[in-house]
Amino acid sequence: MSSKTGKNLKLSLFGESHGASVGCLIEGLPPGLALDLNRIEKVLERRRPGYATFTSARKETDEFSIISGFHQGKTTGTPLLAIFPNQDANPQDYEKLRYTPRPSHADYSAFVRYKNFHDIRGGGHFSARLTAPWCLAGAIAEQVLAKEGIIIAAHLKQIGRIEDLSFSEENLNPQVLSKLKTEKLPLLKEDLREELIAYLNKISASNDSIGGIVELAVLGLEPGLGNPIFDNIESRLAYDLFAIPGIKGVEFGSGFQVAQLKGSQHNDPWFFQGDKVKSRTNHHGGVLGGITTGMPLVLRVAFKPTSSIAQKQETVNLKDKTSAQLLIAGRHDPCIAIRGLPVVEAAVAWALADFYSSKQ
Amino acid sequence: MSSKTGKNLKLSLFGESHGASVGCLIEGLPPGLALDLNRIEKVLERRRPGYATFTSARKETDEFSIISGFHQGKTTGTPLLAIFPNQDANPQDYEKLRYTPRPSHADYSAFVRYKNFHDIRGGGHFSARLTAPWCLAGAIAEQVLAKEGIIIAAHLKQIGRIEDLSFSEENLNPQVLSKLKTEKLPLLKEDLREELIAYLNKISASNDSIGGIVELAVLGLEPGLGNPIFDNIESRLAYDLFAIPGIKGVEFGSGFQVAQLKGSQHNDPWFFQGDKVKSRTNHHGGVLGGITTGMPLVLRVAFKPTSSIAQKQETVNLKDKTSAQLLIAGRHDPCIAIRGLPVVEAAVAWALADFYSSKQ
Amino acid sequence: MSSKTGKNLKLSLFGESHGASVGCLIEGLPPGLALDLNRIEKVLERRRPGYATFTSARKETDEFSIISGFHQGKTTGTPLLAIFPNQDANPQDYEKLRYTPRPSHADYSAFVRYKNFHDIRGGGHFSARLTAPWCLAGAIAEQVLAKEGIIIAAHLKQIGRIEDLSFSEENLNPQVLSKLKTEKLPLLKEDLREELIAYLNKISASNDSIGGIVELAVLGLEPGLGNPIFDNIESRLAYDLFAIPGIKGVEFGSGFQVAQLKGSQHNDPWFFQGDKVKSRTNHHGGVLGGITTGMPLVLRVAFKPTSSIAQKQETVNLKDKTSAQLLIAGRHDPCIAIRGLPVVEAAVAWALADFYSSKQ
Amino acid sequence: MSSKTGKNLKLSLFGESHGASVGCLIEGLPPGLALDLNRIEKVLERRRPGYATFTSARKETDEFSIISGFHQGKTTGTPLLAIFPNQDANPQDYEKLRYTPRPSHADYSAFVRYKNFHDIRGGGHFSARLTAPWCLAGAIAEQVLAKEGIIIAAHLKQIGRIEDLSFSEENLNPQVLSKLKTEKLPLLKEDLREELIAYLNKISASNDSIGGIVELAVLGLEPGLGNPIFDNIESRLAYDLFAIPGIKGVEFGSGFQVAQLKGSQHNDPWFFQGDKVKSRTNHHGGVLGGITTGMPLVLRVAFKPTSSIAQKQETVNLKDKTSAQLLIAGRHDPCIAIRGLPVVEAAVAWALADFYSSKQ
Repeated sequence: MSSKTGKNLKLSLFGESHGASVGCLIEGLPPGLALDLNRIEKVLERRRPGYATFTSARKETDEFSIISGFHQGKTTGTPLLAIFPNQDANPQDYEKLRYTPRPSHADYSAFVRYKNFHDIRGGGHFSARLTAPWCLAGAIAEQVLAKEGIIIAAHLKQIGRIEDLSFSEENLNPQVLSKLKTEKLPLLKEDLREELIAYLNKISASNDSIGGIVELAVLGLEPGLGNPIFDNIESRLAYDLFAIPGIKGVEFGSGFQVAQLKGSQHNDPWFFQGDKVKSRTNHHGGVLGGITTGMPLVLRVAFKPTSSIAQKQETVNLKDKTSAQLLIAGRHDPCIAIRGLPVVEAAVAWALADFYSSKQ
Repeated sequence: MSSKTGKNLKLSLFGESHGASVGCLIEGLPPGLALDLNRIEKVLERRRPGYATFTSARKETDEFSIISGFHQGKTTGTPLLAIFPNQDANPQDYEKLRYTPRPSHADYSAFVRYKNFHDIRGGGHFSARLTAPWCLAGAIAEQVLAKEGIIIAAHLKQIGRIEDLSFSEENLNPQVLSKLKTEKLPLLKEDLREELIAYLNKISASNDSIGGIVELAVLGLEPGLGNPIFDNIESRLAYDLFAIPGIKGVEFGSGFQVAQLKGSQHNDPWFFQGDKVKSRTNHHGGVLGGITTGMPLVLRVAFKPTSSIAQKQETVNLKDKTSAQLLIAGRHDPCIAIRGLPVVEAAVAWALADFYSSKQ
Repeated sequence: MSSKTGKNLKLSLFGESHGASVGCLIEGLPPGLALDLNRIEKVLERRRPGYATFTSARKETDEFSIISGFHQGKTTGTPLLAIFPNQDANPQDYEKLRYTPRPSHADYSAFVRYKNFHDIRGGGHFSARLTAPWCLAGAIAEQVLAKEGIIIAAHLKQIGRIEDLSFSEENLNPQVLSKLKTEKLPLLKEDLREELIAYLNKISASNDSIGGIVELAVLGLEPGLGNPIFDNIESRLAYDLFAIPGIKGVEFGSGFQVAQLKGSQHNDPWFFQGDKVKSRTNHHGGVLGGITTGMPLVLRVAFKPTSSIAQKQETVNLKDKTSAQLLIAGRHDPCIAIRGLPVVEAAVAWALADFYSSKQ
Repeated sequence: MSSKTGKNLKLSLFGESHGASVGCLIEGLPPGLALDLNRIEKVLERRRPGYATFTSARKETDEFSIISGFHQGKTTGTPLLAIFPNQDANPQDYEKLRYTPRPSHADYSAFVRYKNFHDIRGGGHFSARLTAPWCLAGAIAEQVLAKEGIIIAAHLKQIGRIEDLSFSEENLNPQVLSKLKTEKLPLLKEDLREELIAYLNKISASNDSIGGIVELAVLGLEPGLGNPIFDNIESRLAYDLFAIPGIKGVEFGSGFQVAQLKGSQHNDPWFFQGDKVKSRTNHHGGVLGGITTGMPLVLRVAFKPTSSIAQKQETVNLKDKTSAQLLIAGRHDPCIAIRGLPVVEAAVAWALADFYSSKQ
């Protein structure tokens, strides 16, 4: 019923993959913010098919217009609407797909939810195309946060059997994070790149796909941000992150590893570094009791393998109530974690900027 | 700023561990619902210290009064307020703890957030004591859902090195789920019980604690419940679950395991079982595109080890800006996942009942 | 910070008078609603300058595109975005007006609120042009309500010294209400029309403007709709109505006249008409305790005189901090109540449709 | 469904007139606010039956307890719960009233809305008793606003045929406003008091009641507070004010009088008073485009005559579907505007404090 998130800084996404446009409505921006459109372009570029070689074939240019709330190069403070016209709308007869839901896609649940009135072309409102305006919003949020000295970056922690290093005291610094944002395949372990490319090529060649884990860190967050119980940092971030297509898990700090840790291992001792309170370890991932501690915020999300694979799959015919087979043609992302990574950054930026705008 | 969740069925938690009371305000209940107070008592009992032997020493009786919205044994439809008076309020001088934050507790983040005006006694508003009224709300929600034929139950999937079975087609039925709700240590693998008790005793004896994973399943959910993008089932459940003290990870279906799965392995083929659409496997965990598919909803949450351990720990003195040491006396839960389990059930029940009440 | 209203049926307005477009984002519509675009056009026509002769000279065609949430002639149930491109964008140098706020306009308050970053062209985001998409939303809501047998119509109760009849038992029927919707100057007292036209011409000729009162009635509302205290029918309607530019008062039933009534005069006796409960009089205006009674909902709103008048006015220069004079050129509506009337109907339709969509 | 208002400063009211308690849950208060309990008592006293001689006979002492969010004399910043136990709960058999709705009360609409499961004793959740905790919230809000130099006061503008002066430049100063707050019958025209008392005695003696108008002013508001369109000052104040039992009209500035004003009369010319922008007249009542101008905020609300009168009234029997007669025994307020006046002040204080807490 709602495609909106945020308390004081509000984001609504709208549109369908093959309709006129997708876009976003943003409310609550401060007036007078000079938007860096190049920076927005750069974020969009990272999300774009083809950018990192291993992405789907759809030609999207992600051109957008800011329709309102933006005047003489600056935000006005009134609602900002951005529109991304769909340029590659495919005339293909999607209607025949209406009754044969693709496995692991939202086709069947949408069919029931919307009583078969949904726009199914290219996934319609469920398409990952809606993450383009989300990235625009995130890029604006990153500008807001940059003024507070906050940096957000992510890397590909794991793709199938390929595992990158984890964020740790050694690599959690602005230099490493900034470098990650310039890379097509952001990795901490530099020499993993070729192996990863070969692996993705192999997956692709076998008409298959693979899942992945994205790890993200935020540096520069002040302590004391957030709230206890429901309106806490982890709840809000998880709420927004699970809205990204394909994410099936979210964890903070040591995450699911905590199940194997003793309190004596997991508790992070406090100490003073100058006049700042720090913890010697960071199992808590920068948040305690739903409120930031000033330590780096660290989280991980799991992306399922791309649902569209060029293999014959078993499904049903919802009209005839019979079994059916389905082959999704075309070339697909072997791993949505790669294009999903900048969306994860955008989602985190947006939610944190909202917390900053809600500070009293 | 907000201790509230829900759209049409709204829950607000209030109170402090050693203040006058904790409690909840519930809005949006239908009028005329006959509340089964015994059932509420039973849920509260499972959350209570001492119930499963391995819990903290605080004597809580969890007695509560329903102050409003309840008349002649039934809900009126107007706001329902329930209050749990604090009976074990400890006269101990908590004030000296104000400046020596306990590692892995919210003491330091709360100190900054509330500018040292928070009630620190027993964790104050951050105390797990606030999950008692949440369980009451959950028990009411379970009554609402039971009318739709919905059953929710959880088990201890993992505690330290002890691992239970996972939910699977074999055990995902009402009988198994109902049985889990009667057990002090809900496990799928019956013969694990003694080993687990011995393990917890050992942890306890070493003045330590251990983390754990709770796995939960929901049977009977209709397909088509939820929404795309932000207001989806997974986002909302994660939002509520991360509000439970100690949870550091939430995953649905195959969760973080998806990183190692290929699309051809992960995609769940559709088929007709009678006139119902089912999937042969359930990697998606009952939700696709944020909307239920009618398959069992399966999720897991990770609880960190109890933060309070009776060992000397390193911390700081926030007043003097010096380093300090801290020993938290008393007997503590060796594993908060055990008492947390009924809270996980309550949180899921509440959120799903809200989705049902928002159906058009 | 928010240009949005509604709980389950949500409306956001965006845009600036002389920016690229104005428009609305609508969330929460049911899927499968066949939109009657002609009906929408007709509502927009009534709001349009020039329609009733006595309106401003700006050429607006109110052409709009539905960008999303609408597929094959029907709503999809996902967010519906409608855009009204601005076709009469005036190249005039509005910038010189930035520092000389027009009396009775929002220029000065917007200057402070938005730190002078607002788009001032034609009133920017404060322009009555934003009521065009609101009328579109209202027309959709009227379709939703028509299915429940609900009719909404308004008339010009008073303009300056010209007074129409009031709604009463004699004229509160579907025939009269339907007729009102076809009239350029909706009046209950037919022979008032020429006098009103002459009066408006006289006002116009003197470069002045005049205030007015619009009275609205809703027939067919079921009893039991609404809520006590904050989320009540009157609160919500007043909230939305005061968002219409120029409205300075809202009253229900006998409104401000109640100050002179005794309880014995004001109390409306109940009786059975067939098996329906009715009241012999309707001083309460169809709402008691915030909840509908099934009697006609009757309300009145007061529109201030058009703020733009072609007379020299005293103001200040905000830059130089000096006094200044201002003459607003052009031809203006002599009375905004006339164009405001369909917006009042739209606002009421929208709010009531939201209540219907929130019914459990 | 919701008994809550506010964006960042949230107020929920709960309870029933003859249940265990009424009370309020307040979220969003800053930590460290020293609450002046005497001041709260004083506000409650003004709302109390018997205070101004002309009020109902129910003995309420309005004793309250603050249960949470308040520690060592100061707010903690976490949710504050205040409870007012009902001490005069009447054992009278209200059940026989369940089917004979009192004219002008919410009995019938509540019967339909809550399917006859509502608590009808003393009006239940619809009782004006719920305005006691609202006054507590308002008193806290007034403390918050006082720090910004803001004063709020109201007077009895009209009761039946008795009319007081209006707020004007002559009397709109802190001295007059402060004096109004000390009076049992706040009036601008001092020599009206005895006439008013005699009039009220006469109304009372005839077992009747009378309506009234309360006029309120706010001094010290900064310009630039509020928002265009929906989240504007007038909309929000009207939303909260219409939630006060018995209010049937709300108007700002010149209100319904604008219908008779020309633009040349109504437009308020701007000028500089020192370095502050002021308007020579204040027809706009301190708000333009939904945003404060820095001029005094002036509003009026109309209270209907007390619905309970000791006269035989016509009604229906909802069970038997027959006509019935009803006599409400006891002594009642002749005019609810008198006890309603401090609630109007509280409601305005609360809403404005919320706007201040939402400022960025």
